Amino acid sequence: MTDALSPAPTLAFNELVELLQQIFVRHGVAASVARCLAENCATAEQDGAHSHGVFRIPGYLSTLASGWVDGQASPRVEDVAAGFVRVDAAGGFAQPALAAARELLVAKAREAGIAILAIRNSHHFAALWPDVEPFARQGLVALSVVNSMTCVVPHGARQPLFGTNPIAFAAPCAGGDPVVFDMATSAMAHGDVQIAAREGRPVPPGTGVDRHGEPTTDPKAILDGGALLPFGEHKGSALSMMVELLSAALTGGHFSFEFDWSQHPGARTPWTGQLLIVIDPDKGSGQSFAVRCRELVERMQGVGLTRLSGDRRYRNRAHAQVSGIAIASEELAQLRALALA
Amino acid sequence: MTDALSPAPTLAFNELVELLQQIFVRHGVAASVARCLAENCATAEQDGAHSHGVFRIPGYLSTLASGWVDGQASPRVEDVAAGFVRVDAAGGFAQPALAAARELLVAKAREAGIAILAIRNSHHFAALWPDVEPFARQGLVALSVVNSMTCVVPHGARQPLFGTNPIAFAAPCAGGDPVVFDMATSAMAHGDVQIAAREGRPVPPGTGVDRHGEPTTDPKAILDGGALLPFGEHKGSALSMMVELLSAALTGGHFSFEFDWSQHPGARTPWTGQLLIVIDPDKGSGQSFAVRCRELVERMQGVGLTRLSGDRRYRNRAHAQVSGIAIASEELAQLRALALA
Repeated sequence: MTDALSPAPTLAFNELVELLQQIFVRHGVAASVARCLAENCATAEQDGAHSHGVFRIPGYLSTLASGWVDGQASPRVEDVAAGFVRVDAAGGFAQPALAAARELLVAKAREAGIAILAIRNSHHFAALWPDVEPFARQGLVALSVVNSMTCVVPHGARQPLFGTNPIAFAAPCAGGDPVVFDMATSAMAHGDVQIAAREGRPVPPGTGVDRHGEPTTDPKAILDGGALLPFGEHKGSALSMMVELLSAALTGGHFSFEFDWSQHPGARTPWTGQLLIVIDPDKGSGQSFAVRCRELVERMQGVGLTRLSGDRRYRNRAHAQVSGIAIASEELAQLRALALA
Repeated sequence: MTDALSPAPTLAFNELVELLQQIFVRHGVAASVARCLAENCATAEQDGAHSHGVFRIPGYLSTLASGWVDGQASPRVEDVAAGFVRVDAAGGFAQPALAAARELLVAKAREAGIAILAIRNSHHFAALWPDVEPFARQGLVALSVVNSMTCVVPHGARQPLFGTNPIAFAAPCAGGDPVVFDMATSAMAHGDVQIAAREGRPVPPGTGVDRHGEPTTDPKAILDGGALLPFGEHKGSALSMMVELLSAALTGGHFSFEFDWSQHPGARTPWTGQLLIVIDPDKGSGQSFAVRCRELVERMQGVGLTRLSGDRRYRNRAHAQVSGIAIASEELAQLRALALA
């Protein structure tokens, strides 16, 4: 958030996209892929999700420099069945793989009523809601899961195995923005732990354990040989297991514990898989799903909910569209240097 | 659990099914529907889920006596699209609606790769895993959600709105039983709160609030004008909202807060909707999903997990298949009386 008195410079959304695209291209990424990643990253920054915004750029670049991910990869889309599309991301990022399959996926969802997209051999290093929200803006319901890298101790286990394994959901809502949530199945998203560590803030009890498996509220202890815990004990843990199965076993991707990036120093992006399910919600009955969604939202407000899933992002976005996206001067200077590097 | 020294009588699974079917038929349920409900209820009892076993029979019967549910309803199955089946349960139970659509749903999932079943105008008063586990035994992945009746306060709200809104998932696993979980998105299942109240046991902190909205560990205070809380704070709450949207808005069923059973004293079964998604997991890649699932399970055991989702149910089931299902003498006498009533 910024205002006229803030010392932070502001960029329009498109300016930030252009800058980030230049950075990616400058570091070996194909122009179309760079655009895709830049839009994704700028969306997160604009929506106020700093842990998935420009904060991620150094991680992207160190991964590209390591050779672990292929910034030039061309995803191969396969039309498998009336409701099934699969994509081999060819060792590249998941977002261009989704972009390549998107039109076919939507056409199948509208025709068959539901369709699934199974992306494998892919790297996902971003927020998940930008992957699902656009479907809801087309009147479709979308669900996505993606696994990551071993950093979460399954409930009842002694050592980490799962990734932070988020679940994102988007649904159209009449007369307003879609209802969207994006939740790590870990007690906290990995990026938020990194930001807490950077800022020297403790994390809430139940977030994670240190390298000895002991509970800690020190984010550095979690990151330095420790691990996260699932949210909601055995229930969050079961959901995390489901995410592993859907994102990896079903797509043909890797489980969070299966890849070895030790030969690629600097690599930070997990080499896994991603699943999307897209539904045409108006095939279910004679009624309008979006109108029914609005009825639910109004009742939720009626029982005292002042903030719904996604509301904060939409407020930040609206603010950014008027006032621009604030980036700290030092961070902006670093980004500009990277675009020329 | 029982053994040769136990005073509790035991019934074979089929004996219990026969007895329960007789009870349902005796109380106005069509024979095929009665069979369906009896098998469901006996499965829960056999699997050790007492809160969803014969414990539910009085609730079923008082609901039938109230006229709130139609035990004779014939579900109407509609083939909507290549991946979409919908069923109007016609005011009857959800389980016969699923049974009526099952074959078509499986055929579509195999052909299209994924298929959805939207059941509306239905009553679900049972555990959810018996609805999904059979798909996994056929090599398919299944996910189901069902909403119930207002008894859960959304995270951040002041009054209850959502139901206990469970999510169930089943996946085939090579060389063993399917991986199955069935979780209320409330901190505790409603039936378990009822059992705790009956047995005079407190429930864990965070389970619910009393009629004044104050946190309580007294199950009677939760049931008597109080309410449950979601599991996992805002994340469980978001999942519960998703269950409302998928089970009701998408199917054409009622939200948990939408029905008025005040004119039907004794009614206990929520009149809502249910959604199932069934996936052919081997269309995603060249690999066997079930083999990959086994690999994940073995790694979970390798990091110290001694009990996976569903394990306790499978152990209880195996025991019951050898030693029979133990029912307390008094409860069995009541059941036998109901079969003749």
